Amino acid sequence: AALVAGAATANDEVMKMSQNPDGWGTPSGDYAGTRHSKLADITKSNAKDLEMVWSMSTGGPRGHEGQPLVIGNTMYYVSGYPNYVWALDLSEPDAYHVLWKYSPKQDEHAVAVACCDTVNRGASYADGKLVFNTLDGQLIALDAKTGKEVWKVKHAEPKKGETSTPAPLIVKDLVITGMGGDEFGARGRLAAYRLADGKEAWVCHSTGPDKDVCLGKDFNKAHPEHGQLGDLGVKSYPGDEWQRGGGAPWGWLTYDPKLDLVYYGTGNPGLWSPTYRCKYKTHEECNKGDQDNKWSMTIFARKPDTGEAVWGYQKTPFDQWDYDGINENILVEIDGKPVLVNFDRNGFAYVLDRRDGTILHANKYVNVDWAEKIDLKTGRPIKVKEHSPFDLNKPVKASPSAMGGKDQQPCAVDPKDSKIFFCPTNNWYMEDEPKERGAIMTGIVYVFANVAMKPEKPGNLGNFKAFDVTTGKTKWEINEKFPTWGGALVTDGGVVFYGTLDGWFRAVDKDSGKILWSKKLSSGIIGNPITYKVAGHQYVSVFTGIGGWIGLPIAGGLDPSDPFGALGAVGLAYQNGFDKIPTGGSLFTFRVDTGEAVGKKVAQK
Amino acid sequence: AALVAGAATANDEVMKMSQNPDGWGTPSGDYAGTRHSKLADITKSNAKDLEMVWSMSTGGPRGHEGQPLVIGNTMYYVSGYPNYVWALDLSEPDAYHVLWKYSPKQDEHAVAVACCDTVNRGASYADGKLVFNTLDGQLIALDAKTGKEVWKVKHAEPKKGETSTPAPLIVKDLVITGMGGDEFGARGRLAAYRLADGKEAWVCHSTGPDKDVCLGKDFNKAHPEHGQLGDLGVKSYPGDEWQRGGGAPWGWLTYDPKLDLVYYGTGNPGLWSPTYRCKYKTHEECNKGDQDNKWSMTIFARKPDTGEAVWGYQKTPFDQWDYDGINENILVEIDGKPVLVNFDRNGFAYVLDRRDGTILHANKYVNVDWAEKIDLKTGRPIKVKEHSPFDLNKPVKASPSAMGGKDQQPCAVDPKDSKIFFCPTNNWYMEDEPKERGAIMTGIVYVFANVAMKPEKPGNLGNFKAFDVTTGKTKWEINEKFPTWGGALVTDGGVVFYGTLDGWFRAVDKDSGKILWSKKLSSGIIGNPITYKVAGHQYVSVFTGIGGWIGLPIAGGLDPSDPFGALGAVGLAYQNGFDKIPTGGSLFTFRVDTGEAVGKKVAQK
Ligand SMILES: O=C(O)c1cc(C(=O)O)c2c(n1)C(=O)C(=O)c1cc(C(=O)O)[nH]c1-2
Ligand SMILES: O=C(O)c1cc(C(=O)O)c2c(n1)C(=O)C(=O)c1cc(C(=O)O)[nH]c1-2
Repeated sequence: AALVAGAATANDEVMKMSQNPDGWGTPSGDYAGTRHSKLADITKSNAKDLEMVWSMSTGGPRGHEGQPLVIGNTMYYVSGYPNYVWALDLSEPDAYHVLWKYSPKQDEHAVAVACCDTVNRGASYADGKLVFNTLDGQLIALDAKTGKEVWKVKHAEPKKGETSTPAPLIVKDLVITGMGGDEFGARGRLAAYRLADGKEAWVCHSTGPDKDVCLGKDFNKAHPEHGQLGDLGVKSYPGDEWQRGGGAPWGWLTYDPKLDLVYYGTGNPGLWSPTYRCKYKTHEECNKGDQDNKWSMTIFARKPDTGEAVWGYQKTPFDQWDYDGINENILVEIDGKPVLVNFDRNGFAYVLDRRDGTILHANKYVNVDWAEKIDLKTGRPIKVKEHSPFDLNKPVKASPSAMGGKDQQPCAVDPKDSKIFFCPTNNWYMEDEPKERGAIMTGIVYVFANVAMKPEKPGNLGNFKAFDVTTGKTKWEINEKFPTWGGALVTDGGVVFYGTLDGWFRAVDKDSGKILWSKKLSSGIIGNPITYKVAGHQYVSVFTGIGGWIGLPIAGGLDPSDPFGALGAVGLAYQNGFDKIPTGGSLFTFRVDTGEAVGKKVAQK
Repeated sequence: AALVAGAATANDEVMKMSQNPDGWGTPSGDYAGTRHSKLADITKSNAKDLEMVWSMSTGGPRGHEGQPLVIGNTMYYVSGYPNYVWALDLSEPDAYHVLWKYSPKQDEHAVAVACCDTVNRGASYADGKLVFNTLDGQLIALDAKTGKEVWKVKHAEPKKGETSTPAPLIVKDLVITGMGGDEFGARGRLAAYRLADGKEAWVCHSTGPDKDVCLGKDFNKAHPEHGQLGDLGVKSYPGDEWQRGGGAPWGWLTYDPKLDLVYYGTGNPGLWSPTYRCKYKTHEECNKGDQDNKWSMTIFARKPDTGEAVWGYQKTPFDQWDYDGINENILVEIDGKPVLVNFDRNGFAYVLDRRDGTILHANKYVNVDWAEKIDLKTGRPIKVKEHSPFDLNKPVKASPSAMGGKDQQPCAVDPKDSKIFFCPTNNWYMEDEPKERGAIMTGIVYVFANVAMKPEKPGNLGNFKAFDVTTGKTKWEINEKFPTWGGALVTDGGVVFYGTLDGWFRAVDKDSGKILWSKKLSSGIIGNPITYKVAGHQYVSVFTGIGGWIGLPIAGGLDPSDPFGALGAVGLAYQNGFDKIPTGGSLFTFRVDTGEAVGKKVAQK
C-alpha cells in the first residue's frame, strides 16, 4: 500500500468517497456533516418491510456511539472501550465476514477519568489508512488492508484528566482531532498529525494567549463584537484559571473544501461553580463581557494547514450551565449563502454565515429559560438571572439541563431541503446548586455542584423533531418515552432513521414524521445510523449499547443511592427506568425484504 | 405468593407446563428432555420468512448456553457469568418489556476455576419461584413476580475447585442440581434442596463408599455385570484417588414421573493421566475391570425423594480420554419400551431400557476409533490400544477428541418419531500425551497432559445430523465449517433449529435436512433454541455469545501462543479462525412474517 500521500490526495479521495452514495466514507457521511444519503431504495412505502439481515456483537460492554465506515465492500468500525477495530467483508449479501480485528493496549486509568462513559465516535479513512482515537488518548493509524499498525501517537493523557472519544477527521494530508477532559481540569486543544507518519503538524488550544489559540491576525475582522486579538483567552478568566478546564473539543469536525476551513466547537470551562471563573462577585458583573472565559463554548473556523483561526464565535459566554459547546456544525446553503448550522447544548439553533461567523438566526429548538434570546447584533445571549446558577449553595432551575437541548448526538439534513433539520432532543431540566470548590489539580474530578435532572414532562424524555432553523418552527415531532441519545440519518428515499435509549430503532417519513417501522434492538441506541449499498442492496446499520453521559449510570453500574451522581445522570436514570435497559455493544444491519432474498438465502459458507 | 408447596404440587405444575405447548416450562421443554414442541405455526414452507422481531443484550460478556423459560406471557432467563436474571413481559407482540433484573453477588475466584468458560444452562420454575445456579456455586430461588430472593444456599465452593454451570431441575418439592470441577480435583455430587426453603434434602456423591453414592440395596439387580454394591466407588481407584476429581454431574437432568426416577450422568475422573487412576502398570491390566474408577462416567437412575440409586451404568470404565459422561439422557418410547437415549461424549449413542439399564443399542454416531464397539452383554467397550492414551510422554491419537462426539449441547427428538435424533456433533480428533503428575491438591488445575485438537476434515468442524439410534444410520447431515456447539429444537411444524459457532442460526426441514432459512447473529451460538406462543404468534428464541470449552480461548482471551492451552481448545480456536468471532451475550427472537405485523407495527410505548 502507498503509505505516503501527496498533500491533496487524501482530500480528493475523501471527497470522492463522500460523493459516492454507495459508501459511507467519513464519520458524518461527508465533510459537511449532513448525514444525508442519496440512496433511495428504501422508501417511505417499503420501509415497513425492513428486516434485520445480520447482527454483530462488538465485544465492547458499555456505550456505543459513532458509526462504521463503508469503503467499497468493506466495513470498518471501532467499538466502545476497549476500542476493538473490526474490518468486515460485506460482499456476500446479507452476511459479514471478519477480515481482521485489532485490539489496542490501553491505560485503564482512562476509564476512571472519562466523564461520560467510555464511548468512541468512529474512525476516519484515507489513503489506505484507518485512523481512530482510543479512550486513553492514542491516535492510531492502521493499514486498512491488514489491520496492522502504521503509526500511533499519544495525544491525550489520562493522568492529566484527558481522554479521547471523538472521531478524527482527515483533511488534506493531516489527521485532525480533539480530546476531552473539562470535568477533570484538562486544557482543551485541537491538534493535527500527518497522515503519512503521525508527526504532529500543529496544536491549537482553546484557552490561553492568542498564540496558543492560533488566532490569525485578521481574526474576527468582520465581527469585532465577537472578540478579537488581545489574549482574551487569558484575560477573560480570573488569575490562571484559563490553564485548566478549558474548552476541550471532543465533538464533531466538519470541513468546507472551497473555503478551506475546518469547523468545530470548544467545550465548557471546567469549573462547574461559575463564581470561580469570574473576578467579580455578582451574576450581573460577571456577565458584563470581560469575564467570558474565552475561548470556551466557541465555534471556531480554522485553516487546516496551520490551525490558524479565521473567526470564532462564543455561544455561551461565562457559562453557568455546562452548555458544553461542541455540538456538530453542519454545512449547507440556505438562501444562497454558505452557512453553518449548530444545534447547541444551550437550546439555540444557530445559523451562521460560515465565511465570517455572521449570525443569521438563533432560534430556540427546545424549552429554553436561561436566556430570553440571542442578541444577533452583539452575539450575546440575554440571560435570565433566575435560571442562571451562580451563588454557592443556591439551587437554580434551568432549561435545558446541562445535557443540553441536545448533546453530541448529531442531526441530519437533506441539502436539497436545507432549512429542515432532523434532530434528537432532550426533554428535561436541571436543578443546579453550585458548591464550594474542592480540588485545584488537574486530573481529578473538578465539578463542584449538586445537579439533579428532571423530566420536563414525565413519561416523555426524548423528542425527535424536524425543525426549520430559519423560522424556529417545529414541522413535526415524535414524543418518546425514553431519551433520543443517538444521531439521525436522512435519505433520498424520504426516510429518516433514529433510535431510542430503550432500544427502539425507527424509520420515519421525512415529510410527515409518521413512524413507518420500528424494531426493538439489543440495548439502548446512542449510535448514529448509516446507509450504504453493497452487493446490490441498500443497507442501514446502527450500533446498540447504552451509555454516554445519559447511560453512564447503567453502563458503569453506578450506585443508585446518590441521585447527584454523574452530575445528575444517576437520578435521571434510576427514576426513569433506565436500569431496565440491558448493556452491551452490537451492530445491527437491515434491509428491505424484497421478497427475493432476505432470510430466503442459504448463506452457508 | 404461596411459597410453600405440597409434595406433589411442583411436579403437577411442571408437568402441566410441559404439556402446554405455548410455553417453555423447563430447561429442556419437558421432563423427558426432548426439546420438542407441538407448535406448528412455523412450517417447512414459511420458515423462509422468519424474521428477527427483537433482540436483547444479556449484559454477560462471555459464553451463553442454556435457554430462557416462558411461563405464560413472561420470559425468564439467566445470562452467562455474572448470571444476571431477567424477567420480560412479552404480552406486547414483537417486543419485550423488562419486569425486573436480578444481579447476584459472586465470588470472582469462580472464574479462575471454571474449566470451560463461565456459562450457565438455565433456570427452572415452579410454585412461583425461579431457581438457578451461579457460577460460584450458589443455588438461588427468586420470587418470580418480583425478582426478590426467597432463599439461597451455597452448594459448590470455588476454593475447592468447584463451580456450578448446570440448570437445576425441580421434581416434586425438591430442587435437584449437580456441580462441576473435575479438572480441579473436586469430588462430584448431586444434591437436592427443598423448593420451599432451600434446606438440603440429600447429597449423593459420584465416588466413594456405597453409602456416599446412595446405592440402593437392589442396585443394579437386573445387571450384576454393571457393578453392584461393595464400595466399588472406593476400590476401583488406587489409594484415595476417589476423593478427588470424580464424576461431577454438571450436565442435564431428566425425570420420568411414572417410574419416579431422575436420570443424569457423572463426569470424568479428574486426573487426566489415566495411569494415576490405576494400581497396575499397563493398559491391559487397568482395563481388566477392577480399576474402572466407579462411579465416574455413569448414567444413574435415582429416586428423587431420597437420592437412592436404583441402577447405574458406567459407559467409559477407566476413562483414558476425558469422555466426561454427563450428556443428556432423553426419555422416549421405542418399540413399546420406555428407553433413555444418550449420545455420549465417547461417540456412542446408547439406548437403555430406563427401568433397569438394559443396553438395547450402542451405535457409533461419529467417527470412533478408541473402541471397536460396546459389548452389549457386559456393557463394556472393546477398547483399541493404539487409540488409548496411557503411557506418560507417549502421544496418542483418538477419535472423538476429549470434547466428544458431542459435548453438553443437547439433541432434540420428536416423541412421535422417537428413533430419529437431531444432534449437533463435533468433527475433530485429538492427540493426547499424558504427562507427569504435578499437583495433588484440590482447587488447582489438575490436568497432566498435552492435548492438541485437529479437524477430522479441515473446513468442516461441525455436523448437524438426523440419526437413527436403533440402526446407527445417519438419515441426513449438514456439514458446517464451524462447530455446532449449540443445542437442537424440533417442532411439529416439521422444522429443526440449531446454530453454529460463527453465528449462523438455521431452520432445517426435519425430514430432508434441507436448510430452509439462515441468519447471521451477533456472536457464536452455543445456546439452545426454544419456541413458544405469546400474543397470538409462535416465536423462536436463541442465545448468542461464543464460549463454552470450544469458545473459551476467544471468550476468555487466552494466549494464542500455547496451542495446548485449555486442553487443546486454544490451538483448535486459533488455527480455525474462531478469533474472528465476536464475543458478547444476546438473546434473539424470531417469528414468521405473516405480512400483517412484523416490523409493520408502530410499537412505540
Ligand atoms: O468536557 C469534556 O471533556 C467532555 C467530554 C465528553 C466525552 O468525551 O464524551 C462529554 C462531555 N464533556 C459532556 O459534557 C457531555 O455532555 C458528554 C456526553 C457524552 C456522551 O458521549 O454521551 N460525552 C460527553
Ligand atoms: O468436569 C467438569 O466438572 C466439567 C465442567 C464443565 C462445565 O461445568 O461447564 C465442563 C466440563 N467438565 C467438560 O469436560 C466439558 O467438556 C465442558 C464443556 C462445557 C461447555 O460449556 O462447553 N463445559 C464443560
